[in-house]
Amino acid sequence: MTVEEVKKAIRNVPDFPIKGIQFKDITTALARHDCLCWMKDEIVRRYKDLGITQVVGIESRGFILAPAVAMEIGAGFVPIRKPNKLPGETLKVLYDKEYGKDTIEIHKDALTPEDVVLIHDDILATGGSMYAAVELVRKAGVKKIYTNCLIELEGLNGKQFLADRGVEIECLFGIEVEE
Amino acid sequence: MTVEEVKKAIRNVPDFPIKGIQFKDITTALARHDCLCWMKDEIVRRYKDLGITQVVGIESRGFILAPAVAMEIGAGFVPIRKPNKLPGETLKVLYDKEYGKDTIEIHKDALTPEDVVLIHDDILATGGSMYAAVELVRKAGVKKIYTNCLIELEGLNGKQFLADRGVEIECLFGIEVEE
Repeated sequence: MTVEEVKKAIRNVPDFPIKGIQFKDITTALARHDCLCWMKDEIVRRYKDLGITQVVGIESRGFILAPAVAMEIGAGFVPIRKPNKLPGETLKVLYDKEYGKDTIEIHKDALTPEDVVLIHDDILATGGSMYAAVELVRKAGVKKIYTNCLIELEGLNGKQFLADRGVEIECLFGIEVEE
Repeated sequence: MTVEEVKKAIRNVPDFPIKGIQFKDITTALARHDCLCWMKDEIVRRYKDLGITQVVGIESRGFILAPAVAMEIGAGFVPIRKPNKLPGETLKVLYDKEYGKDTIEIHKDALTPEDVVLIHDDILATGGSMYAAVELVRKAGVKKIYTNCLIELEGLNGKQFLADRGVEIECLFGIEVEE
């Protein structure tokens, strides 16, 4: 399995969710056992020796690989969810999206000051939701935060947006966004 | 790790999402590496030798364990999602929920007549959403369907509801629903 094979397994769907957007659909790669394992193995390889205690996944697509990574690196799994989904007391962050605003939540007691956290999502676009997730985990107060996305959509400056805010992110590979 | 220890790690949150409901919160178990691995291992043990080619997870909490199980049993992962989330052409099923109706979708080309499918979700309550998922996978036309939930909420008759419709479901364990 090579990164080029995985890239080829990701489907481009034009005009989704709105006209003009070339949507990168990872479901065609997830349905292939070899690609699914490759993606998990590549994340595990990068983060296994860093003392990570909790892998945080961002709802919904961040839930797909984060728990499997957590199992392999000796960590637990903590979800960041959309509003009113988590039943316990939560911390919240409100952030700007392309159209309007969105809120994400994490359980107040899910993380401790001793935790070393990896935040994972599938796709890095403009970086807005990943940065909101970082802010949320910072609010919870942990020892260290790593961030990872499967795919960077190149040309949307997500990496720069995060770097400007002191967040270094690692992605498994980049895909160019066609006009 | 025993089933009793895992049960103890699941938190009861009263009056969520509405007054009178005792919500079973699995996030406290998912955050523990030992419980997280136990849940995945128990599912793998039951389904590893059945020739399953695709593990289908129901959004969102079904996404947490289904991909890890798929990786270990040699299968791919296919998501069932809420409306308008999947970018490709989809099959849809409309079903009754406690309050109103809901639709779930699967990509039309995600499964083939040769596939042996395991449908997974975290919690079996009344069985409505699991049965809708079975109908959706039947529409896609596969060779055989297995169904699994982590937890059966006892007293809500989900197993009977499914059995009445020809669906046999296996859950890792049951939890009594307090009044």
